[in-house]
Amino acid sequence: MKKYLLIILAIVLSSTMGFAQNPLAEKYNIMPWPKAIKELQSKFVIDSSLTISVGVKKSDRVHYAATQFLRRLTLRTGTFLEEGFPLENNKGMIQIHFDEVSKLDIKNDESYTINVQSSSIKISAKTDVGAIRGLATLLQLIDCNSTEYFIPGVAISDAPRFVWRGLMIDVSRHFQPINVLKRHLDAMASMKLNVFHWHLTDDQGIRFESKTYPKLHELASDGLFYTHEQIKDVVAYADRLGIRVIPEIDVPGHATAFLTAYPELGSKDDYDYSIERFSGVFDPTLNPTKDITYTFLENLFAELTPLFPDEYFHIGGDENEGKHWDENKDIAKFKKKHGLKTNHDLQTFFNVKLENILKKQGKKLMGWDEIMTPDMPTTAVIHSWRGENEGLSKGGTLIEAAKKGYQTVLSNGFYIDRMQSVDYHYSIEPIGDVVLTDKERDRILGGEATMWSELVTSITIDSRIWPRTAAIAERFWSDKNINNLDNMRKRLAVVSHQLEELGISHIKNRSVILRGMTNNQEISSLLVLSNICEPLEIYARNKDGMEYKTFSPFNLFADACVADALDAWYFKKATANFIASGTSEVVLNDLKKWSENHNAFSQLQQNPKISSLEPLSKNLSLVSQLLQDAIRKKKISKENVQIIKNTLILLREPVVDVELVITPSLNELVNYCETNYLNR
Amino acid sequence: MKKYLLIILAIVLSSTMGFAQNPLAEKYNIMPWPKAIKELQSKFVIDSSLTISVGVKKSDRVHYAATQFLRRLTLRTGTFLEEGFPLENNKGMIQIHFDEVSKLDIKNDESYTINVQSSSIKISAKTDVGAIRGLATLLQLIDCNSTEYFIPGVAISDAPRFVWRGLMIDVSRHFQPINVLKRHLDAMASMKLNVFHWHLTDDQGIRFESKTYPKLHELASDGLFYTHEQIKDVVAYADRLGIRVIPEIDVPGHATAFLTAYPELGSKDDYDYSIERFSGVFDPTLNPTKDITYTFLENLFAELTPLFPDEYFHIGGDENEGKHWDENKDIAKFKKKHGLKTNHDLQTFFNVKLENILKKQGKKLMGWDEIMTPDMPTTAVIHSWRGENEGLSKGGTLIEAAKKGYQTVLSNGFYIDRMQSVDYHYSIEPIGDVVLTDKERDRILGGEATMWSELVTSITIDSRIWPRTAAIAERFWSDKNINNLDNMRKRLAVVSHQLEELGISHIKNRSVILRGMTNNQEISSLLVLSNICEPLEIYARNKDGMEYKTFSPFNLFADACVADALDAWYFKKATANFIASGTSEVVLNDLKKWSENHNAFSQLQQNPKISSLEPLSKNLSLVSQLLQDAIRKKKISKENVQIIKNTLILLREPVVDVELVITPSLNELVNYCETNYLNR
Repeated sequence: MKKYLLIILAIVLSSTMGFAQNPLAEKYNIMPWPKAIKELQSKFVIDSSLTISVGVKKSDRVHYAATQFLRRLTLRTGTFLEEGFPLENNKGMIQIHFDEVSKLDIKNDESYTINVQSSSIKISAKTDVGAIRGLATLLQLIDCNSTEYFIPGVAISDAPRFVWRGLMIDVSRHFQPINVLKRHLDAMASMKLNVFHWHLTDDQGIRFESKTYPKLHELASDGLFYTHEQIKDVVAYADRLGIRVIPEIDVPGHATAFLTAYPELGSKDDYDYSIERFSGVFDPTLNPTKDITYTFLENLFAELTPLFPDEYFHIGGDENEGKHWDENKDIAKFKKKHGLKTNHDLQTFFNVKLENILKKQGKKLMGWDEIMTPDMPTTAVIHSWRGENEGLSKGGTLIEAAKKGYQTVLSNGFYIDRMQSVDYHYSIEPIGDVVLTDKERDRILGGEATMWSELVTSITIDSRIWPRTAAIAERFWSDKNINNLDNMRKRLAVVSHQLEELGISHIKNRSVILRGMTNNQEISSLLVLSNICEPLEIYARNKDGMEYKTFSPFNLFADACVADALDAWYFKKATANFIASGTSEVVLNDLKKWSENHNAFSQLQQNPKISSLEPLSKNLSLVSQLLQDAIRKKKISKENVQIIKNTLILLREPVVDVELVITPSLNELVNYCETNYLNR
Repeated sequence: MKKYLLIILAIVLSSTMGFAQNPLAEKYNIMPWPKAIKELQSKFVIDSSLTISVGVKKSDRVHYAATQFLRRLTLRTGTFLEEGFPLENNKGMIQIHFDEVSKLDIKNDESYTINVQSSSIKISAKTDVGAIRGLATLLQLIDCNSTEYFIPGVAISDAPRFVWRGLMIDVSRHFQPINVLKRHLDAMASMKLNVFHWHLTDDQGIRFESKTYPKLHELASDGLFYTHEQIKDVVAYADRLGIRVIPEIDVPGHATAFLTAYPELGSKDDYDYSIERFSGVFDPTLNPTKDITYTFLENLFAELTPLFPDEYFHIGGDENEGKHWDENKDIAKFKKKHGLKTNHDLQTFFNVKLENILKKQGKKLMGWDEIMTPDMPTTAVIHSWRGENEGLSKGGTLIEAAKKGYQTVLSNGFYIDRMQSVDYHYSIEPIGDVVLTDKERDRILGGEATMWSELVTSITIDSRIWPRTAAIAERFWSDKNINNLDNMRKRLAVVSHQLEELGISHIKNRSVILRGMTNNQEISSLLVLSNICEPLEIYARNKDGMEYKTFSPFNLFADACVADALDAWYFKKATANFIASGTSEVVLNDLKKWSENHNAFSQLQQNPKISSLEPLSKNLSLVSQLLQDAIRKKKISKENVQIIKNTLILLREPVVDVELVITPSLNELVNYCETNYLNR
């Protein structure tokens, strides 16, 4: 009997305390999903009398977050608040309590609790950062009925799984203005991400002002760079959101821009270095055998490190193929003299020098996983990025680094520029079933989504990062068994819209691009197509990095499409349901929409941008019409089966850098029709 | 015969050289319309080989404008340019020639010519600013057919009518971040506006960092202010676009925020000054009888004037009702002692002191037209804002100032925050038929649209400024006889979309607000309503300034609506056409859309924001259905006439701060039906 009670208790607990498929995750749209949540018999109604108090302890973070909480609550609910600013006491209807102001580092405590009563809400945390994490959750709880807005009664107790939850933005391939970075920092904070990794240099540009080496921004930035003041502004802005900022100065490879400004640091004399306009891995590399290289980097780091208070400093270190090293006789001699057998050894020599320089400046060196060579001291931090694509195991360098004694961060599997589905990224489990000692586990700091920007401008970066990165943020924050895809998708849909409320342009800029394509004609037919097309995945869009230049147009149809074409996802579900149960309503509605869409498309005044989509629109219409007829009449001719199959062959071919992603479902349908409706 | 030829010539000239209703204005969508344009037998085809050269003379303005020209041409046409940057020679297919780099001032020459040949385009100007004005025009000439993009062969010769063509933005009532200002500067430049008047202080906040008087930004800004670096950045950005920046420090009235920081400067002792949250005219006023007031302003101006290189400096001076002056005995004594009979005299005393301070700092004092008192020296510049609304004649203070010897700028008639139609503003003729001497005419520098921001946030400011200000820009640039409303509307529709291409959010944020209202439901039914509703005009929205506070929600339905509801404009035309000619197709389509729209509206999951629109949606549906039936059947019953008329009474009532602006047309229709279809 006692055992029976325990089982009941276990079931109750598992259904309310945050284990997988917690039924409350169907009801509430919190993301990342908290560690523990239970419902209370209370309901906090939002009206104009609402106040929020931040206590008497000063924290800019809490004050700002509480002010933003009021602003966003106002936007969401339309409430005319009497008091639009936080109270500096403990008397608010929403009370925030915290014990200390965080020094932002990897030991920071971000846990918090929320307790919603009918007449008051309490957020408690050890640190101010924990408190603002709680406010982010509270904002996700706002609900409404036809007459009022309210916050449902819940008790939440939450803390992150990983201490390092990051987003990298590459501002070299395409520069991103300060306001773009700031709105992504806002979005990151709303998803409880706490590291902004700022990829500041690459072959395509140096993006900071250098007072020590001014030719860097003068000759190697096209005028697109951040001043010291602007960098300080971004770092302060991030700090206020509880986000650490890690700069990356990528050396010795990816150095074309450096060498455009200071060719004397290069590995080839008389080489004509100039800012790279294409994408890929290029040869220009710093010369690790010259003293001036180290003087340069030491001075440069000395200029930059005061701007970035965080302990960690990223030196890149990736994708150096050593071609220019091999072509330089002096470098060959140097290697021989110092007993450096391979270019890897030479790069380790370089990395160790850099680590010492950074150590003197109070910084910990972090680098992409190529820096993990046998001679690299374990004080370095390994950023795991290579995986199956690079002939290694999935996330393998992460576990390897942790076992070898390095602190480590995972980005393999979180390359959001590859335009893969949110389901793929969400399903990456950083540690999996690997057995680790506590120390090894502690060395795995967390993960980072990486937004490489070869094909991304300020118009599209929002839709490339969001909403997918919200699901990745959940992977980094929540328990590993929070992993149900359908439930994630349901919550993500709500969160995606809240990101728009916060200023992210991922939804609205789709229409902007399509209006641009049509020269401001009616875009509904293009919207229909963009909801079932996805940009080519995994760099197929820009073969060999030579199709697009930095200044090529990135407001094409492919740029209006996103990695998860929503209508395709629903259609796949509807198709499966139809085949399993015969319920045809949703499938027929979709087919009708697509068959009729070509008519609207045809009415657009054509221009070169639109014309290229014409075959796709027309063929889709044909297939949809024939399938629709077949399903309605439960009858199909052999001839029509063949027409559909032949047309599907055409539809499977990528066009204007997109794929029509409903073709597998259309294929299932034609096969079903052939099997069940032929000759009836 | 000779006379006959001259008449023919005159007709040809007037049809090609830019006089009113130039038929080419039906063909091309240039705005502001140029002084002279004629067609050539050429066509410049845009392809990847296109290049642009900026000559060997250095101008940051031309270099930047040429780069932006390439970027926008790429966005517009999707062309994959081989060369994405301007050439520093004279060999481009598009060649820019200019003689000198402008010092930005009111004597600046902004004229230019464009000549489009089939294989080359030449832009020539006296100054670099003239050259970039030409590039703005060239961008508006890009056209396409189904297979190619091209620039049609034209020869243009252009120059502005007025030297001062401005936009004022009030950043005190609602702060606007740097990036918002920059995108409006971009838009201004595209419309050839050349003055950004930056209203930096008011009762609701001081928006600059002060190193001399730090309490200004610390206590009187809510943390929302521009640093010196940011101000320099904006001024440099504007300069590069050929835009002068005039700061406004509004004194002695509108001074609540000043006095929140430094109450000792106030006209009342022991008054509890605190940042104003409402809108209107308030009592807190600087004390013009204390020396510390002048020390304060002298030091403050000394800090600010180096940040603003322009010669003109705006000191506001408006709307001081002198209530606090009257309530202060010391001020009464001071007036007596100095022989100052009225508060106007006292303010003139203050203004003259300020003029001397500014003169020492190399600046010309500019102020709102209240400063034009008999004792005010004519070295001051009069900003004419009062008119019929304030019991004066329309634009009267402008002419009065010019005749009295003051330089003067017109804003009366261009208060875009009043949410009046573009037709209204476009029809304001600054000088009209007033006869002026050449000297008097020269003193009329031009005009400024004023964006007061009591009801405007960063989400909506774009739709409050644009596209109406484009038409105002034409009023300031083009000949006075360019004044056809229909033609302006036709060109404005194209320009409006080009403003979106440039980054202005006036179109896309409408959907953002409506998605927010519905919590991300299907918004098409709300879009339909927002296209026939306009926000209440002329401050009726915020009665006595007491309905909205600074932090109230400004993402309501009224904020999604704009001053010119486009469908209403078309419906008005269609109604007139139907009544005149009996052509009912367009009218019936609209009525059908509105009658059916309530069905879609009703399917929205209701919340408090949506519910308030329900009566409007339902009543509109009813009226539209009955009118539709009547027009289709050419028959209406007495009863239905009455139902329509009664419902129209309801529909005329403002709801949620908007007006349904099709009610006059609906009224015409019911009257028409009653007259023609009753008892048939």
